[in-house]
Amino acid sequence: MIMRALIVSLLSIGTIAAPLAASANEPIQPIEAAKPKNEKMVKLGKMLFFDPRLSKSGFISCNSCHNLSLGGTDNLPTSIGHNWFQGPINAPTVLNSSLNLAQFWDGRAKDLKEQAGGPIANPGEMAFTHELTVDVLRSIPEYRARFKELFGADKINIDMVTDAIAAFEETLVTPDSRFDKWLKGDKSALTQAELEGYKLFKESGCTSCHNGPAVGGASFQKFGVHEPYKTASKAEGRFGVTGKDADRFMFKVPTLRNVELTYPYFHDGAAWTLEEAVEIMGRLQLGRKFSKDENAKIVAFLKTLTGKQPELKLPILPPSNNETPRPKPFG
Amino acid sequence: MIMRALIVSLLSIGTIAAPLAASANEPIQPIEAAKPKNEKMVKLGKMLFFDPRLSKSGFISCNSCHNLSLGGTDNLPTSIGHNWFQGPINAPTVLNSSLNLAQFWDGRAKDLKEQAGGPIANPGEMAFTHELTVDVLRSIPEYRARFKELFGADKINIDMVTDAIAAFEETLVTPDSRFDKWLKGDKSALTQAELEGYKLFKESGCTSCHNGPAVGGASFQKFGVHEPYKTASKAEGRFGVTGKDADRFMFKVPTLRNVELTYPYFHDGAAWTLEEAVEIMGRLQLGRKFSKDENAKIVAFLKTLTGKQPELKLPILPPSNNETPRPKPFG
Repeated sequence: MIMRALIVSLLSIGTIAAPLAASANEPIQPIEAAKPKNEKMVKLGKMLFFDPRLSKSGFISCNSCHNLSLGGTDNLPTSIGHNWFQGPINAPTVLNSSLNLAQFWDGRAKDLKEQAGGPIANPGEMAFTHELTVDVLRSIPEYRARFKELFGADKINIDMVTDAIAAFEETLVTPDSRFDKWLKGDKSALTQAELEGYKLFKESGCTSCHNGPAVGGASFQKFGVHEPYKTASKAEGRFGVTGKDADRFMFKVPTLRNVELTYPYFHDGAAWTLEEAVEIMGRLQLGRKFSKDENAKIVAFLKTLTGKQPELKLPILPPSNNETPRPKPFG
Repeated sequence: MIMRALIVSLLSIGTIAAPLAASANEPIQPIEAAKPKNEKMVKLGKMLFFDPRLSKSGFISCNSCHNLSLGGTDNLPTSIGHNWFQGPINAPTVLNSSLNLAQFWDGRAKDLKEQAGGPIANPGEMAFTHELTVDVLRSIPEYRARFKELFGADKINIDMVTDAIAAFEETLVTPDSRFDKWLKGDKSALTQAELEGYKLFKESGCTSCHNGPAVGGASFQKFGVHEPYKTASKAEGRFGVTGKDADRFMFKVPTLRNVELTYPYFHDGAAWTLEEAVEIMGRLQLGRKFSKDENAKIVAFLKTLTGKQPELKLPILPPSNNETPRPKPFG
């Protein structure tokens, strides 16, 4: 019995090792579970992510537009900000965002830490200031104690705030999608139609941009290669950052991980269905018209990219007190 | 040793039993942990409570204004609704709300089930309709399956939706506050100042309205007995429900459970601090001016009413699909 167990055990190692090697030849790699470096930092970051007191109104938190019940986004074409301001662009999912080469559609933030400070101070989003954010947190003993424990000094600054938020966001990865199981060797994880969809996805050239563990997020590309993208959106992509004509309509390739959850699609959120998004991408980016059957197979494949969503305990936030600056929801 | 253990054990029973009987003589009783009758119903209700697709915009959920990270309220004077509408009244906490004799400040809903339908269809809150709510849920296979399992038929109506939300809300109780520990016999649970605050709270007459397990919620009372309450609010309390002159400014006595978390206070949310609230209540309701020391002691007592907050796993909501009615955040 012991020998038999040993053999089975050795065989299992074999079956795991071989497909892992095989998936290295695929343009998409599995996502691995997060290994948080500092659990206490992650916990503080989670509290801040859910705390609406990081906004002028006291009503909008990071989670309002990057809702972790909804695939890390708000499922709206463009987001709602302070005073019901209509945002100019679709909120990208926070899930797996640590895998992006840069943050925001135009890549204007180099990493999650730099990104996290943006919406807090954007008048059309959380409409607060970094100074007031720090004042609010400093007034609350539990926050002060947590920052002190993590950063060593009895002070809080916006750098520490964005460090913590980024540390939390780095844990928001979604491993174990059916596609990843297939990549890792479970050949029964996908149906025939899904596999055919993946084959089409590769052969049509989708993987020239949508590749790597995030199935995107690794490059900027022009939206509208074979024909221009028609949109009411005024967003001009990288051009807004670099001012170079060549960067006009260059956007960060979005991740396709959890794409079933992150509708509506594109930087203007104009495509509500995956069928529509696949049709437009084929026509504009690849100069190719997918048949109805091909489109359906690619969509079937895309839905296998839905991974295990982060399991989170809703944080209980420490109350404000008589010293805490008060929210200003109106006026 | 065995005998000694037995004696210690019998003694423990003694120390527990006696104070339990004693707390029956107090005007406030401990809150007991929730015993959900139907776990699956509670789970569905939790999903609905967190689902912003119950609003026209797709942005506002029950949890937006009854935020379970923030004591079951929004910590704003009055709430923000659809299109940033400024609500007319302070959002009462959902925590322990099952203990209220009726729901809303004016008691216009007889129970949690009746309450739950209100905000969904209120143009200044979630601004949706019951019909569209049901259409959204019906379009989503996971919701359809859950309703079918619970209600037996392959259909969804608003009654089932509010049944489930109410079932979840009934679990949102907060036992084990320091005051409850004291009530149950742990005489070290309160400091001397807190005990003196409780004594003052009883002797001044606060407990004539703020009594029972919820320390309130059991009656309607006139706000402004010894002198009128000055406010910009147009709310007239029970008068709006009954049309009787005697009901003008009669409001449901709010629970004081977790009152440290549920600032700002009163139906207009005009009092930001407990000190201010205690001062006003003493003067207007009891015709009594508390000294600074008395006020501080009562406030110290009130802060012992913060109970164990519900521990919740953030629900992962099933995605919309091509059949789901789309949110209309703007216009």
